Amino acid sequence: MAEMAQITLEDLRQLAVQTLSDVGYGDRHAAAIAEMLLQCQRDDCQSHGLFRLLMCHQTMKAGKIDGHALPHIDPSEGAIVRVNARDAMSILAVNEAMPTLIEKARKFGMAAMTVNNCFHFSALWPEVERLSEEGLAGLSMVPSHSWVAPAGGKRGTLGTNPLAFSWPRMGKNPFTFDFATSGFARGEIELYLRAGKPLPEGVAVDDEGNPTIDPQAALDGAMLTFGGYKGSALSIMIELMAGPLIDDLTSAQSMAFAEGQGGAPYHGQIILALDPYHLSGGRVADNNARAERLFADILDQGARLPSQRRFEARARNTERGYVEVPKALLEDLKKLGG
Amino acid sequence: MAEMAQITLEDLRQLAVQTLSDVGYGDRHAAAIAEMLLQCQRDDCQSHGLFRLLMCHQTMKAGKIDGHALPHIDPSEGAIVRVNARDAMSILAVNEAMPTLIEKARKFGMAAMTVNNCFHFSALWPEVERLSEEGLAGLSMVPSHSWVAPAGGKRGTLGTNPLAFSWPRMGKNPFTFDFATSGFARGEIELYLRAGKPLPEGVAVDDEGNPTIDPQAALDGAMLTFGGYKGSALSIMIELMAGPLIDDLTSAQSMAFAEGQGGAPYHGQIILALDPYHLSGGRVADNNARAERLFADILDQGARLPSQRRFEARARNTERGYVEVPKALLEDLKKLGG
Repeated sequence: MAEMAQITLEDLRQLAVQTLSDVGYGDRHAAAIAEMLLQCQRDDCQSHGLFRLLMCHQTMKAGKIDGHALPHIDPSEGAIVRVNARDAMSILAVNEAMPTLIEKARKFGMAAMTVNNCFHFSALWPEVERLSEEGLAGLSMVPSHSWVAPAGGKRGTLGTNPLAFSWPRMGKNPFTFDFATSGFARGEIELYLRAGKPLPEGVAVDDEGNPTIDPQAALDGAMLTFGGYKGSALSIMIELMAGPLIDDLTSAQSMAFAEGQGGAPYHGQIILALDPYHLSGGRVADNNARAERLFADILDQGARLPSQRRFEARARNTERGYVEVPKALLEDLKKLGG
Repeated sequence: MAEMAQITLEDLRQLAVQTLSDVGYGDRHAAAIAEMLLQCQRDDCQSHGLFRLLMCHQTMKAGKIDGHALPHIDPSEGAIVRVNARDAMSILAVNEAMPTLIEKARKFGMAAMTVNNCFHFSALWPEVERLSEEGLAGLSMVPSHSWVAPAGGKRGTLGTNPLAFSWPRMGKNPFTFDFATSGFARGEIELYLRAGKPLPEGVAVDDEGNPTIDPQAALDGAMLTFGGYKGSALSIMIELMAGPLIDDLTSAQSMAFAEGQGGAPYHGQIILALDPYHLSGGRVADNNARAERLFADILDQGARLPSQRRFEARARNTERGYVEVPKALLEDLKKLGG
């Protein structure tokens, strides 16, 4: 267990804004990114909280991101809002187009936001939870870099391709999930390699497509999706929906674009918003009750809902006003030059 | 291997229409259901082809279905077309509302069909492939009966909750998948029980939530979803999207409605249609090429695309004009009284 330090939410925000500004993010980007990091850290989501400042820093140093470009929104007349992030980080673009997405979903019953030409490092749940706070159901997908083999394959073609969904619950935390469609994170494989430990079964193949538990063989081969051929099919759907459907890169194209440099991958994002009022013909209360019976039946048998731990952390950290982050991370962040 | 008989597609259609009419389905329902069975059988999809005539027959005998009610379409002004199947089988309702769904997807960039109050037995891929034939991406979900435990649970709460997706490919068969989010079919467990064989690991729990490979313990307990907690989260999403979101039953409510009688489950269905033209800002050709590179990269490494076997069967059976069905099935169908 890493040694932890306490930091107030306000200090965390200031540290993030300062670090981002110093390295070259414009004020509005720095504020939007800092808010995203704060939301994740507030939920004890260490992998997507303050830790990601390192990736934001590295992305800027890699030289391809525009730290100042402001998003350009094309609202169109239909149920689609297209937003061009113009080679900046995704978050400000999503924030700016969110009111239009919500308005369109309420007007048409459902709507989609497409985000193009963005660098992307963030968890998807804060954005779908923005929708569920508004009483809408939200669904989001992004590609990433092509580390993951399709079922029956032997080399990386698919991204870790996360899928996030949030469902509004009256007076309660939403039903939210946000998971990678890869079975394992690439960083985890590197940790196994360093520790000299074998991988679990079923997470990787070698470069001939044979199952492997050897971390080096896995790094030379590819990761697998969760759930066998079904997870693989789902991951391909995400490539299509968040790539070619919206005029943006596949995970393989995103990896080629990066030219081996680190930092956040560059690609698109799709967010769907569905309005229960329209879709249920106005019978929201009855259907909320129906959904609550489903959740109760899950909880009553000792199962958990996804994100429960995150919501518990949110309540605890919001009340006490500070979060815990690894001491080593704070020290690493102090060392970053502008 | 069951002994097989050959039947021409036209004879199959007539047999289906006759059987359906005899038991009490009106002409338009009989024609729509027969066409669905034919499409599945043409693709050698034995589980959803002619075999399902038995379930259509059983559903009518169970007494709750209306064999004659015609769907009522409420097109609304937005991107949603709501269709009330009025206690009939789903297929005619979907067919009748499909042109409105397509028109709305082209007009607004995306659209949804909600189908309410329907009995449902059919594969989802023929309906999403109707959309991909029109150059749209299609996504469909239905609940079923609550045989499946959530991750960490011990009793059936979720349905087998299938998810289907189809992506249009110029001059080629579409990219289509259609899979249950349960790891195993309930019927398969019964086959293991009769054969006295242990189940594979990871498909079921006993009534205390412990993993089991004993078929009887599994039938007393519950099936599991594919892919652990991720598959479970996805299955809950499908319950919500094809249930409370659209003012229709969850799988548990559908099972209660059936009162232990057999036949097709009664619930709703959601179908989303997405227009690549709108969503890509008109750059369809470039993005088709991008998607094709993704498919080529999957195939080049020896992996298969979902539904490839089905498309091979379709080509073969369409060319020769007949399909193969188990002889015993034809005999069983002959025995059905009207």
